[in-house]
Amino acid sequence: MPRPRLAVSAGDPAGIGPEVTLKALAQPEVAALAEVTVVGDPELLRATAERLSLPVPPRLEAAGDASGVVAGQVSAAAGRAAVAAVEAAVRLVQEGRADALVTAPISKEALRAAGYAWPGHTELLADLAGVAEVRMLLVSGSLRVVHVTTHRSLRSAIEAATRERVLRTIEMTHEAGRRLGFAQPRIGVAGLNPHAGEGGLFGEEDQRELAPAVAEAAGSGIMVQGPLPADTLFWRAAQGEFDFLVAMYHDQGHIPVKLAGFDEGVNVTLGLPFWRTSVDHGTAFDIAGREVARWQSMAAAIRVAADVVERDRART
Amino acid sequence: MPRPRLAVSAGDPAGIGPEVTLKALAQPEVAALAEVTVVGDPELLRATAERLSLPVPPRLEAAGDASGVVAGQVSAAAGRAAVAAVEAAVRLVQEGRADALVTAPISKEALRAAGYAWPGHTELLADLAGVAEVRMLLVSGSLRVVHVTTHRSLRSAIEAATRERVLRTIEMTHEAGRRLGFAQPRIGVAGLNPHAGEGGLFGEEDQRELAPAVAEAAGSGIMVQGPLPADTLFWRAAQGEFDFLVAMYHDQGHIPVKLAGFDEGVNVTLGLPFWRTSVDHGTAFDIAGREVARWQSMAAAIRVAADVVERDRART
Repeated sequence: MPRPRLAVSAGDPAGIGPEVTLKALAQPEVAALAEVTVVGDPELLRATAERLSLPVPPRLEAAGDASGVVAGQVSAAAGRAAVAAVEAAVRLVQEGRADALVTAPISKEALRAAGYAWPGHTELLADLAGVAEVRMLLVSGSLRVVHVTTHRSLRSAIEAATRERVLRTIEMTHEAGRRLGFAQPRIGVAGLNPHAGEGGLFGEEDQRELAPAVAEAAGSGIMVQGPLPADTLFWRAAQGEFDFLVAMYHDQGHIPVKLAGFDEGVNVTLGLPFWRTSVDHGTAFDIAGREVARWQSMAAAIRVAADVVERDRART
Repeated sequence: MPRPRLAVSAGDPAGIGPEVTLKALAQPEVAALAEVTVVGDPELLRATAERLSLPVPPRLEAAGDASGVVAGQVSAAAGRAAVAAVEAAVRLVQEGRADALVTAPISKEALRAAGYAWPGHTELLADLAGVAEVRMLLVSGSLRVVHVTTHRSLRSAIEAATRERVLRTIEMTHEAGRRLGFAQPRIGVAGLNPHAGEGGLFGEEDQRELAPAVAEAAGSGIMVQGPLPADTLFWRAAQGEFDFLVAMYHDQGHIPVKLAGFDEGVNVTLGLPFWRTSVDHGTAFDIAGREVARWQSMAAAIRVAADVVERDRART
């Protein structure tokens, strides 16, 4: 069977995206995983490869103009180039020229500077794909965590943890889990309040919103438990008791995932009509151009994307 | 110099407190750390020791009546016995017969069943000691995390993360850090919102409440940074970049501490006129009487208490 074909958008040209992409693909074991097309400004990619003494990837897809972009500096030009690369990479997938999308980081500030309305990468992708509802799955080591909400205030995350949204998240987690190779994924749902509300003593949302969502999902045949006290749940999952966890807000899921494996985290977007994986770090403007960026998360993102494409193929 | 003298309250007699206390003290390396007085119902302690084939501790202080208490069952009688043990253990410290207090877990439900108004252990201790403001420090491996708030709803924790309370927490962390042997403790303050609010995009509390508190503390000579994005902060502390962290709410601090070292967590109460350490687990009624409870957290609590007493002695 031919190798999975991946479109890798190189990210904001002022950030570490091009560097980590080239570094990851320079590892023979990473390059062997897939037929990768790197999408970005070919001039910048060639110059970066030369500067780092790395090979130029065999398949480049030209998108965006990074001329004049300065490493480490937020700019409208870099924002435009980053979006052009994402758009072109999505097009490769939508036209059937790639099987899945892998993305290097883009900058929220650069998006704003360029006048775009998308608050972040995920919203841009949802818009390009024409879907309304996506969820972030973070994978690191034995932890796989799907977030009910991510980039919003903690106060508004509490409001958004409704029965409907929690239920939909459990369903999306179950579906993704099956596609990721778990015949019957064991899902644990983290409580919103400490001790999952301690029977209503520490907040009523766990009983009012989360518990009915879990009960409904369980009733439909999903193997799910919760809401469970979050402080011990991530440890229990790390011991193998659960395949997937559902976290109610950004930090609840991100803190344990980054603690469990800082360099190897992969962000997978659920709800798109195609697979998209991403590094779980940002543009790191503070170290851009200094050649010290670590490529492990990009390698992991490529590995996970290649894996899910092969699983999908094996099933159909 | 004589060994530190520790008063260890045996906790709710229906929980695993007596068992983990006896198991920990049966370890020669734990028993060697301090002159320990175990406070509880001596009949129950002797019966538990016999059942587990463990030595009866040489120093027992009788407090509370556990006759009729059934392992694993919440009861008013067990709640009364647990409180009597805490009261007697505090008295040993207050009368100068012990240098520090170590506590096994008590049950919130049993407190309620017995008609007490204290919502938990810490409030009971604050009341007995006559102080109004305490903080929970959790220690596990290289993580030391002080919590601005603990047992309350997430919604009310956001309200309570005021400039005043955050500042006071930083000051208490600094003071405790110095007493724990750090000449100039490096303190990191976790943001309340994701990305510490991303410049106000994800909530205003980080800029409005946390940042001024950190600035004021730093201005008074405390080595403190923040608010910092919580998702990477705990990883950074685990790498040694900070000696202490300040967490805004229960799960923000508890999730990484328990993930970093489930069995070895120690809870230290800051703000009392004496040192108090505790196991970081509960009464575990589900396994009480089944002889499978792990004693590592109690051993760690005894070790930390003995250590802080010796540090205080060395300084005076």
